[in-house]
Amino acid sequence: MILVLKPQIAPEDHRRLVETIRAAGCEAREVDGKARRVIAILGDPEKLREVPLDVFPGVAQVVRVTKPYALAGREFRVDPTVVRVGETRIGGPGRFAIIAGPCAVEEYETLLEIARSVKAAGADLLRGGAYKPRTSPYAFRGLGLEGLRMLREASRAVGIPTVSEVMDPRHVEACVSNVDMLQIGTRNMSNFDLLIEVGKSGHPVLLKRGRDATVEEWLLAAEYVLAQGNENVVLCERGIRGFDAATRNLLDLSAIPVVKARSHLPIIVDPSHATGFAAYVPSMAKAACAAGADGVMVEVHACPMEAKSDAAQALAPEDFADLAADLRLLHQVCRTPASRSR
Amino acid sequence: MILVLKPQIAPEDHRRLVETIRAAGCEAREVDGKARRVIAILGDPEKLREVPLDVFPGVAQVVRVTKPYALAGREFRVDPTVVRVGETRIGGPGRFAIIAGPCAVEEYETLLEIARSVKAAGADLLRGGAYKPRTSPYAFRGLGLEGLRMLREASRAVGIPTVSEVMDPRHVEACVSNVDMLQIGTRNMSNFDLLIEVGKSGHPVLLKRGRDATVEEWLLAAEYVLAQGNENVVLCERGIRGFDAATRNLLDLSAIPVVKARSHLPIIVDPSHATGFAAYVPSMAKAACAAGADGVMVEVHACPMEAKSDAAQALAPEDFADLAADLRLLHQVCRTPASRSR
Amino acid sequence: MILVLKPQIAPEDHRRLVETIRAAGCEAREVDGKARRVIAILGDPEKLREVPLDVFPGVAQVVRVTKPYALAGREFRVDPTVVRVGETRIGGPGRFAIIAGPCAVEEYETLLEIARSVKAAGADLLRGGAYKPRTSPYAFRGLGLEGLRMLREASRAVGIPTVSEVMDPRHVEACVSNVDMLQIGTRNMSNFDLLIEVGKSGHPVLLKRGRDATVEEWLLAAEYVLAQGNENVVLCERGIRGFDAATRNLLDLSAIPVVKARSHLPIIVDPSHATGFAAYVPSMAKAACAAGADGVMVEVHACPMEAKSDAAQALAPEDFADLAADLRLLHQVCRTPASRSR
Amino acid sequence: MILVLKPQIAPEDHRRLVETIRAAGCEAREVDGKARRVIAILGDPEKLREVPLDVFPGVAQVVRVTKPYALAGREFRVDPTVVRVGETRIGGPGRFAIIAGPCAVEEYETLLEIARSVKAAGADLLRGGAYKPRTSPYAFRGLGLEGLRMLREASRAVGIPTVSEVMDPRHVEACVSNVDMLQIGTRNMSNFDLLIEVGKSGHPVLLKRGRDATVEEWLLAAEYVLAQGNENVVLCERGIRGFDAATRNLLDLSAIPVVKARSHLPIIVDPSHATGFAAYVPSMAKAACAAGADGVMVEVHACPMEAKSDAAQALAPEDFADLAADLRLLHQVCRTPASRSR
Repeated sequence: MILVLKPQIAPEDHRRLVETIRAAGCEAREVDGKARRVIAILGDPEKLREVPLDVFPGVAQVVRVTKPYALAGREFRVDPTVVRVGETRIGGPGRFAIIAGPCAVEEYETLLEIARSVKAAGADLLRGGAYKPRTSPYAFRGLGLEGLRMLREASRAVGIPTVSEVMDPRHVEACVSNVDMLQIGTRNMSNFDLLIEVGKSGHPVLLKRGRDATVEEWLLAAEYVLAQGNENVVLCERGIRGFDAATRNLLDLSAIPVVKARSHLPIIVDPSHATGFAAYVPSMAKAACAAGADGVMVEVHACPMEAKSDAAQALAPEDFADLAADLRLLHQVCRTPASRSR
Repeated sequence: MILVLKPQIAPEDHRRLVETIRAAGCEAREVDGKARRVIAILGDPEKLREVPLDVFPGVAQVVRVTKPYALAGREFRVDPTVVRVGETRIGGPGRFAIIAGPCAVEEYETLLEIARSVKAAGADLLRGGAYKPRTSPYAFRGLGLEGLRMLREASRAVGIPTVSEVMDPRHVEACVSNVDMLQIGTRNMSNFDLLIEVGKSGHPVLLKRGRDATVEEWLLAAEYVLAQGNENVVLCERGIRGFDAATRNLLDLSAIPVVKARSHLPIIVDPSHATGFAAYVPSMAKAACAAGADGVMVEVHACPMEAKSDAAQALAPEDFADLAADLRLLHQVCRTPASRSR
Repeated sequence: MILVLKPQIAPEDHRRLVETIRAAGCEAREVDGKARRVIAILGDPEKLREVPLDVFPGVAQVVRVTKPYALAGREFRVDPTVVRVGETRIGGPGRFAIIAGPCAVEEYETLLEIARSVKAAGADLLRGGAYKPRTSPYAFRGLGLEGLRMLREASRAVGIPTVSEVMDPRHVEACVSNVDMLQIGTRNMSNFDLLIEVGKSGHPVLLKRGRDATVEEWLLAAEYVLAQGNENVVLCERGIRGFDAATRNLLDLSAIPVVKARSHLPIIVDPSHATGFAAYVPSMAKAACAAGADGVMVEVHACPMEAKSDAAQALAPEDFADLAADLRLLHQVCRTPASRSR
Repeated sequence: MILVLKPQIAPEDHRRLVETIRAAGCEAREVDGKARRVIAILGDPEKLREVPLDVFPGVAQVVRVTKPYALAGREFRVDPTVVRVGETRIGGPGRFAIIAGPCAVEEYETLLEIARSVKAAGADLLRGGAYKPRTSPYAFRGLGLEGLRMLREASRAVGIPTVSEVMDPRHVEACVSNVDMLQIGTRNMSNFDLLIEVGKSGHPVLLKRGRDATVEEWLLAAEYVLAQGNENVVLCERGIRGFDAATRNLLDLSAIPVVKARSHLPIIVDPSHATGFAAYVPSMAKAACAAGADGVMVEVHACPMEAKSDAAQALAPEDFADLAADLRLLHQVCRTPASRSR
């Protein structure tokens, strides 16, 4: 349930309202938007059935949310959320965020080289996996803490913030100390204990969609993080399970307008893991931009053929530079549609 | 198997080559591209195992196609196919094709009004269903022949070519006489007798992807039409079966680069049937354009709320005009990428 | 809408009731069950809003069906439908129907041999394709009319009724003359003109589930046949589209209890096309029986390795004989559950 | 890679063989089967390219496994694995394992009542969730440690071993101390850190299939546990993601013969979570038994309508008793097929 407050609500009424909600066993979460002040009531709405919220002094409107998420929904927050990661911002009408880097962190020199080249091409964030989820227990599983430290060092040397995946609640602290944004991978979208842990950290979170998740289940996973008081959540569509082996996963770009219709959270797209082939990455990145995404995350490797994981899908640095330039132009054009300039 | 001929092949050798192929029980299909002359050998390649095609006089190269389609593949034809429908052309680097119109043809006056408005907004083709496939036997199933005649009349009155669905091999003739392009719907992509019949007609064909079809199965359906000597095939992605009810179908935009990598046939996208909601149509149409599609097909209805079928997904004429303008601009930008103009 | 009539309804009232329904522009379809007489009203229920059916003389109850199918639903008919095919019956609490035979009819001698062996092993029907839907236009597409005649001859020689697929409305007549049951294949489940044509024929129909169809869409396809007055419809689950290449399709055995809960029509299972591997056929056939299916359809080939289509999934005759014996025993056990004999 | 040893291999040769493998940077895992002694080589097979294993003294055969799992495969172990949980055994030709109990542990008295009734009806294990994965952060998420203790107490009072889900690596120890078998839920099948932790515990593991997992990915998840030296893994099919809302998930019973063909691990089926409706549970449980599963896991609740989670899918105790009796009889019949008793 969402309460829209009257702009001129008396501090006394405001305090009584929050106390009443808590006395009934629910939680009150507040947000001060540009245009309106709102309280989301978390918990079982049945508990408040007896409380006459509609006529409570200072309450302008009671929105009974039929969706199972409250904090992630547009009813709670009308303005788009903008998430700050270092100097970068993701979401809102401004810049289109471009995240780039290798699938896994392998050697420091290589990482540094890629970091420099993607920064030069205009990337906003550096990605790189230190903890790698691998389907086989015998595959290369990342450098762990050592990889995190390399990311921090490369970040400082080049001046670009970083994002890296965390898979285990016991690693959250180490990740928070070393990288600027925590990624929750597709396999862990429903790892609820991990979501709660990254929620508590307050650190920016990049939440990938589960391969088998509906948009609603995805927004509920975001709600787990938001419910811990962490509002810095960016969604990332990366392909769901499909029946056609022509691409590695099935990129669901329609998730972009669906998310925009239901939520205030930013959404970006990972065309590299979605398609699994470098040749398909540029067209899907541009499609994501035209569809209204807030950014993309692209795999780049200095020598794609030598990468230890996911080699076929990484772009070479020069191809990434071309793509980044195309995306900047495209984003500019899409922001000022012909229809509105007539 | 594909034979690339030497430019200077002697007519005598050319004749002998074709005779040898036929004597072995296969069929020889020729195409004269801008850059090269090619013969596709249709039938069981085993039959030609004894024939030394590699050293045959006048043969430059033997391409052993591992894909099960020959005529639809890029090995057979390097240049993109351009399909003419009336004065319009679909495919190739030129114009982005916009097809628009009502889901079903209902009343002539309404049809005429929509035809005029979409033509004014820059549409290249008018769509409208006379034979409607409906999941329930009790739903409105279209006006049939009467609907086809309304389409012909509206087409002449407004000066715009038409496309309409054919579902029954016995209706092909009537459709050919009244509309400029035959649509094969998603439910009939594997209706092979119908594919053969539209193939024989020689008329332009808009072949929608089956809701359960891989790209390879779709190209094989196109091969059915091409194998009848009808080269005028345009593919149309319209969403496949997905597990998330947030959209009606699951639009697979990655099919665009996959088709472009494998085939010379044009591919367009139908965001209306894919998403099922008018609000999601513009972003998906623009995404299709940015991904490299050759056009889109969009449902437009004068009074969307009154349409007898698929009301929720039709755009109002003024929204369509805005979208068409956006698409024209976007297509222009995407054709001259920033990367290449540096 | 379904009207349950009072047992003692006066003929005069009955006549007036039917006339009233027709006068409103709907159709009245009657069924006399063992326990109750029922009229299904087909067409737009809005047209009857003004008619006080609830208090009409002779009407015991008005059942407002929320499902989009009427004739296929359990509201219309409580007792399970039993479909007669020659001397065989499919559906109801009696015999478990076993259909067996080659994927495609190839040579008469081979067909005759298989027919004899499956009949000896206790099969109730002989299957065999004369018109074969093939994904590639260059694959063997069946012997057509010649194949139908071979089926008729083998049927007479051995004394076993036959079922064969029809794909084109123009072939329905020839199929009706030569085989005892018409099969609608998975690719044609939504080929509505074909459904209407087999509906009009009155011949028994085996309706396979579309690879992309929900149970509801499948029952609506059955409704197309039933709405033509043809009540002889048997459903056949044969696997839907899945993401795991470990089996050819994804057999949905839960469709059995779902269909039983919603419809009176018999349902059988085709484990051969579902799994695509002979080794998996016996366990899935037995599972179908234990789940409550009314029968199975199994591919049998004298020399599975030599079959021109779908070789890997056909059982050898001796393996089929073992399976048939197992199924007869299993069906007997499942009909008299331990729980009820305690 | 799998090495089959000669029965009479000299201890000296055996030792040298293992040393050679380790010196190359791989791991040697041994199993002594009834019929043969085998060493699985874990790690990158490239490292052993120079080692002439085929002619090594005492090596009978080198099996180059093309599948990405080694320990889970039939090449490694021919005999079916039997997992002991308390006094119960799962797998092998013996008893059909029946696991039953509530979705979540709620109150001790209720739990005890259900434990008694399922034990009386012949259940082998008691299930009950203490840590519940819930899609919404606001839903009841289980009693945690208190729930585990209730399970231990009920287990002792009634004399039945228990299984309960663990979701967080930090909870493994507490679960091991209180329950007899650890369940990995569908959402955590690819939570690799958790798999490693339960692997290290040595405790029996019930590994549910991910809703989006192929059988191969599932066996690789099992390989994660096995690679820690924990051989006590039972697989549980519980439905994958499907497009038909008629059932909650899509039960893939063909996974049973597929797993049996590829692996030695036992496989059971959870028809309650798969279908989501109590009415469909008995037919799917029986189908699983007929298909060759080693057991089933069924939700039972004293008052299904009052359960705090998944109410619609729980059986009442008396319906469970009927089902258990049916399953015992069915399993007996399926073990002695008609075909073999002729």
